[in-house]
Amino acid sequence: MNAISIVGEATLRRLVPLDLAAIDQVEAAFASLATEAVAMPPILRLDLPQHHGEVDVKTAYLPRFDSFAIKVSPGFFDNPALGLPSLNGLMLVLSAKTGLTEAVLLDNGYLTAVRTAAAGAVAARWLARSNASRVAVIGAGEQARLQLQALAIVRSINAATVWARSQPAAEAFALNVRDTLGIQCDVAHDVHGALAAADIAITTTPSREPLVHAADLHAGLHITAMGSDAEHKNEIAPAALAAARYICDRLSQTRVLGEWHHAIESGVVAHDAAFAELGEVIAGKMPGRTSANDVTICDLTGTGAQDTAIAALALERVRAAGAGTTFCNE
Amino acid sequence: MNAISIVGEATLRRLVPLDLAAIDQVEAAFASLATEAVAMPPILRLDLPQHHGEVDVKTAYLPRFDSFAIKVSPGFFDNPALGLPSLNGLMLVLSAKTGLTEAVLLDNGYLTAVRTAAAGAVAARWLARSNASRVAVIGAGEQARLQLQALAIVRSINAATVWARSQPAAEAFALNVRDTLGIQCDVAHDVHGALAAADIAITTTPSREPLVHAADLHAGLHITAMGSDAEHKNEIAPAALAAARYICDRLSQTRVLGEWHHAIESGVVAHDAAFAELGEVIAGKMPGRTSANDVTICDLTGTGAQDTAIAALALERVRAAGAGTTFCNE
Repeated sequence: MNAISIVGEATLRRLVPLDLAAIDQVEAAFASLATEAVAMPPILRLDLPQHHGEVDVKTAYLPRFDSFAIKVSPGFFDNPALGLPSLNGLMLVLSAKTGLTEAVLLDNGYLTAVRTAAAGAVAARWLARSNASRVAVIGAGEQARLQLQALAIVRSINAATVWARSQPAAEAFALNVRDTLGIQCDVAHDVHGALAAADIAITTTPSREPLVHAADLHAGLHITAMGSDAEHKNEIAPAALAAARYICDRLSQTRVLGEWHHAIESGVVAHDAAFAELGEVIAGKMPGRTSANDVTICDLTGTGAQDTAIAALALERVRAAGAGTTFCNE
Repeated sequence: MNAISIVGEATLRRLVPLDLAAIDQVEAAFASLATEAVAMPPILRLDLPQHHGEVDVKTAYLPRFDSFAIKVSPGFFDNPALGLPSLNGLMLVLSAKTGLTEAVLLDNGYLTAVRTAAAGAVAARWLARSNASRVAVIGAGEQARLQLQALAIVRSINAATVWARSQPAAEAFALNVRDTLGIQCDVAHDVHGALAAADIAITTTPSREPLVHAADLHAGLHITAMGSDAEHKNEIAPAALAAARYICDRLSQTRVLGEWHHAIESGVVAHDAAFAELGEVIAGKMPGRTSANDVTICDLTGTGAQDTAIAALALERVRAAGAGTTFCNE
């Protein structure tokens, strides 16, 4: 007999808010990637073109956690027409000692949203200037909002500017940010204008064409580029990448899925460039920002290590709260 | 809100026995592989050497089914010392139309055992002589027993011979087969002796050294080799493979994980040999057995298509029976 915790989205939203603890947990995962014998295989991807659907499966084992997550992330892009969200999914939590299933976290993608936003905050904590206070947000989706919320935990943010392809979406975003985060937020007319006065920029779009160009950069800027997580997505122009200090979550992923991939393809940056991973910066093995004038770009594609970290936090909270439904598998 | 069926092992054992319906379901999956736009990505594998553990994740989308499975198969080889089975695991069933999770089948590997045995029966149904009645079983584990049980559904089996590295295990197996399947079963002293009088041989071991050699083959024999599912495993000697008509479940898998892999390495068979897949034989696209004298070898490494097929059958039965626990994810 094996007792398995089944935990729904509402419970997970209540127990695992996007807070400093979540950011610290994700930071620990990045540090592990640089210092421990982490096992993180390539992402499993299933495509269902007949249904405009795709599924990613990510996993990673980090010695510092007693359990590991296997995360299933479906994206079905005809769902909105059916009144369903495009993205959903769940995380399985398995014991790292026995492989037994400990929990099924039916988060519908919530924990992914949290760990993704937390990673953005970790990037800013290590790479943005400590006095950074003005943020440009490129994209106006849910993750844009969460990135800003997470960023405000690690830096004293007092002004935001948003740009999105859809002006109404940008206006709604600005209103929401003012209402819910209490941060003044204006709408920019273009990306260049959004970045002009920013200390930190966050790009959170599924764009297939670069949005940030070399001419948009200025001394001291930090960019967290978290939109690109697939071969065809590209937010940062190769020349902009080459002009900045480039750091990423995982070289083996950004080389094929992230911004670096496009810079390699265009011949601007070598495929074996000695870039640093965020975990190496955290662990002190590679330099991050070296002066107030550096332009830093942190390219985040999302790692199974983050999933294992946030799932471990969720399981700890679920157990402490006695939450979830216990299923006894006989 | 999304209603998810949580189904335990005992319920699945009751609702999805190893029977003709299971064999037909798995046969349909093989046919799909040869005739439909199946999406079956490479297996995701996570290794946890610190804990003598490994996890395989398999998935496949088959247009003929409304859902697809994502199967998680952990193997943790220190578990027996803890009083736990080495192998366990579960299957997630997702809607092929929306990606929403429909069921969590907590089968602890039971459905894998069923679909693996069913695949062996499918192989024999298409490749063994129709009057085959005598079986040699190499290996004496649980899957050896299930393979024989499944085989007896598709051929009139009246005698079995078992060989295993452990003589007591072979004797216990023979006794069990006589008691539970009503098939006379003797213990052979070596593999050659086991195969000498057999029409069908099933190899079900994790051997790292070939057990079946060219000299063990005789006209009319069919071998289902289902033990090797990893680079280091090898049951059939390269020369034996070269001397037979070789068919497999999936060329892309057996080329790297199965018996073919070792025949390529030893230079006996080309890596681009025009071998048939079992599904192509079922679909009539490639020849299987062409005469009563052919020696056929079917190399099974296990496919996500089989998992999707057996999971679809399980979900259908669970729904029809009103079984499982419904979890409403709000």
